[in-house]
Formats: sequence, C-alpha cells, structure tokens
Amino acid sequence: MTATARLTAKGTATRARIVAAAADLVLARGVGGTSLDDVRAGTLTSKSQLFHYFPGGKSELVLAIAELQMQRVLQAQQPYLETLDTWAAWDGWRDALVAHYASQPHQGCPIGTLVSELVGTDPTAAAEVVGHLNRWRAYLRDGLTRMHEAGLLRPDADPDRLALATFASVQGGLLLSQALQSVEPLSAALEAALAALHAAAPDGQAGTAA
Amino acid sequence: MTATARLTAKGTATRARIVAAAADLVLARGVGGTSLDDVRAGTLTSKSQLFHYFPGGKSELVLAIAELQMQRVLQAQQPYLETLDTWAAWDGWRDALVAHYASQPHQGCPIGTLVSELVGTDPTAAAEVVGHLNRWRAYLRDGLTRMHEAGLLRPDADPDRLALATFASVQGGLLLSQALQSVEPLSAALEAALAALHAAAPDGQAGTAA
Repeated sequence: MTATARLTAKGTATRARIVAAAADLVLARGVGGTSLDDVRAGTLTSKSQLFHYFPGGKSELVLAIAELQMQRVLQAQQPYLETLDTWAAWDGWRDALVAHYASQPHQGCPIGTLVSELVGTDPTAAAEVVGHLNRWRAYLRDGLTRMHEAGLLRPDADPDRLALATFASVQGGLLLSQALQSVEPLSAALEAALAALHAAAPDGQAGTAA
Repeated sequence: MTATARLTAKGTATRARIVAAAADLVLARGVGGTSLDDVRAGTLTSKSQLFHYFPGGKSELVLAIAELQMQRVLQAQQPYLETLDTWAAWDGWRDALVAHYASQPHQGCPIGTLVSELVGTDPTAAAEVVGHLNRWRAYLRDGLTRMHEAGLLRPDADPDRLALATFASVQGGLLLSQALQSVEPLSAALEAALAALHAAAPDGQAGTAA
C-alpha cells in the first residue's frame, strides 16, 4: 500500500497493466496454477520490476487482482446495486448480472473462486477477499432491509438471511456456469432466488411490482 | 483404471488410504497448493509406490479424490436423495445436508472447488469432475420430474431449470459457508431454494406437504 502511494502516474499505470494481465492469467489457471514467473512472462516484466510494484510478492498481487475483479463486478451491477429496494430494481439487477456473464460464462466468479483457493494456503489474503464478498453481499442486504422497513417483505422475514441466500444463488450459479460453460445456471439460479424473495412478500403481494 | 484392477486386496487398501489422506490435503490447500511431494510426505509413501498406485500421476490422484468425495457427499444425502418426489423428502434432504456440513463448514464443496481449480489447468480432469456434479444434480432433477408428473409442480414449471437453481443454491451455500466459516449460508440458501420450489407448486398448494 505504501509502495503504491509512492508511485508516479506512469508507475501507477504500469502497475495497473500488470494487475489486469495477471488477473486474466489467474482467472484462466487459478492462483495455484499461476507462478510469479508466469506473470513476468505474461506481462513482459522483469523480476526487479515486479518486486518494485509488488514488494509483498504474490499475496500482494493476488489482492490487487481481487480488488480489480471486485470493481469490475460491482460496476456491472450498476445502477441497480444501490437501489435494490423495489421489485423492478431486483429484476434489473438480475438482467444486468446475466448479461455481464453471458459473454464470459467460463469464468465463474473471480472473487468466489479466489476464496476457495486461498482459504487453505494464504488465510490473510483469504480474509481480505472474504471482505470483498461481504461488501458485495451488503448491497443486497441493505436493499432488502429497506424493503422490509417499507412493508414490501413480511414482518417475520429476515433481510440478512434472505441476502445470504440470494448471494449464495449468485455464487453457485456462477460456479455452475463455469462448470457447464453456459450462463443458464446463473440465469436459473437468479430466477429462483427472486422467486424466494417474492415468497417473503406479504400474502397477496407476492407477484406485484413495487 | 487398469492399474487399479490389477491391485491385490492389500494394494487396494493402501491405495484407498493414500487417496483419503491426499483428499484431506487437497481440501485444506487446493489442488494447486498440493504437490505430489506433499502427498508423499503426508502419506509416508515413496515415489515409486505413488507411481505404482497412480501411474497417471497427479491427474489420476485428483480424480480418485473427486470420486471419494462424491461417494461421501452422496452418502450423506441418503436415503432422501433417491426419493425427492415429496415435499417431506426435500425437507429431510435439506436437514441431512445441513447436518453433514455443520460439522465441517470450513470445507466448502470438495467437488465444486475442484472444478474451478481444474477448469484452467487440467480440462480432462475438470470434465470428469463436472460429470460428478451432473450425477449429483440428476438426483434433484429426477425427483422434480416425478413431482411435475404427479401434479405437485405447475404444468409450466421446468424441472430441469428448477434442479439447476436448487443445485446452485447448494454449491453457493457451501462456497459461502467455507468463506464465512459457518453453516448458516448453506442453511439460508437451502431454505430459499425450497421456498422457490414451493413457489412452483400449483396455486393454493404452495405450503402443503405431499
């Protein structure tokens, strides 16, 4: 972090270029399957350059990749992500996510897959990546909390638990989309997730748009 | 496969012991984070012994691990997995899965995490592991198909797509349970998945037990 703060504008651009290229490598081969030598070869960077930009080594590079992937995936869900307090916004969010991944169903969730790889090998990095997942999930929870307060969800509905379940559908849908090389699992998972949310609406309101 | 067929009873037991120990290593550190040297050290096996039991090398070992993990997870879902054609069986299935993972929430799905690691590094092995996922998913689809035929799901419901969504909830719930070190994500995900299935029941039957 200190190192990043001290970079020139040109240095910052070079670092960003390395992170973007390394992100593609890790996406294709996993953290375990991508060595720093692979990154050097793939980004035409020297060993000392790589050390200059990432003095913390592979962990620091992996965290920069996670940060980049997180920015990308949050961006793809805008403007819906911050306004998930109407049924129409949830529909828009679902469509935006499906559209984003329809062009790259083979990728899975770049954040979710990092977690399962890092949990056993680099717990500190894993905890930071879990922080990204929680940040993403919080948008869903905040929207559902506002819907709960507005009476769009039943009084006994639990916005936290509903957000957790909805986010699990996103992650599982992406994992299966990667496995089956098709966006259909994500699409089916989000459709069911929204059906479960509608089932938590007050009786008689389940199908209405807010 | 040929090598396995030629093993003595004692050899088969030794091979199974190596697979079980290696499965724990891979679960903890991922495929990328586990070398054959790690497996040798962790199982007190010599290089030539390991080659004797796994002439196909790491890929063959990883596939044996996937097979073992698949047997375990299918076993944990019995007897419900083969009778998922009543709402009561779905409830029993959910409870069995949650109980199985409540004791080991840190593990995630040993099959699902393998897929995301192998897709980029070993496509042949990845395809075999995806076959396991499809075998697991087929149990859900078969139950839902029978429910559809019996009129427990609406005529316009799509058992294939519902099974895909339910399975995504399982996988995403396990991924988040691993990330958050708690079984709650899996429990919340399965509760919502069953709510979505109930929402596909004929009007007025949504809450009834079959």
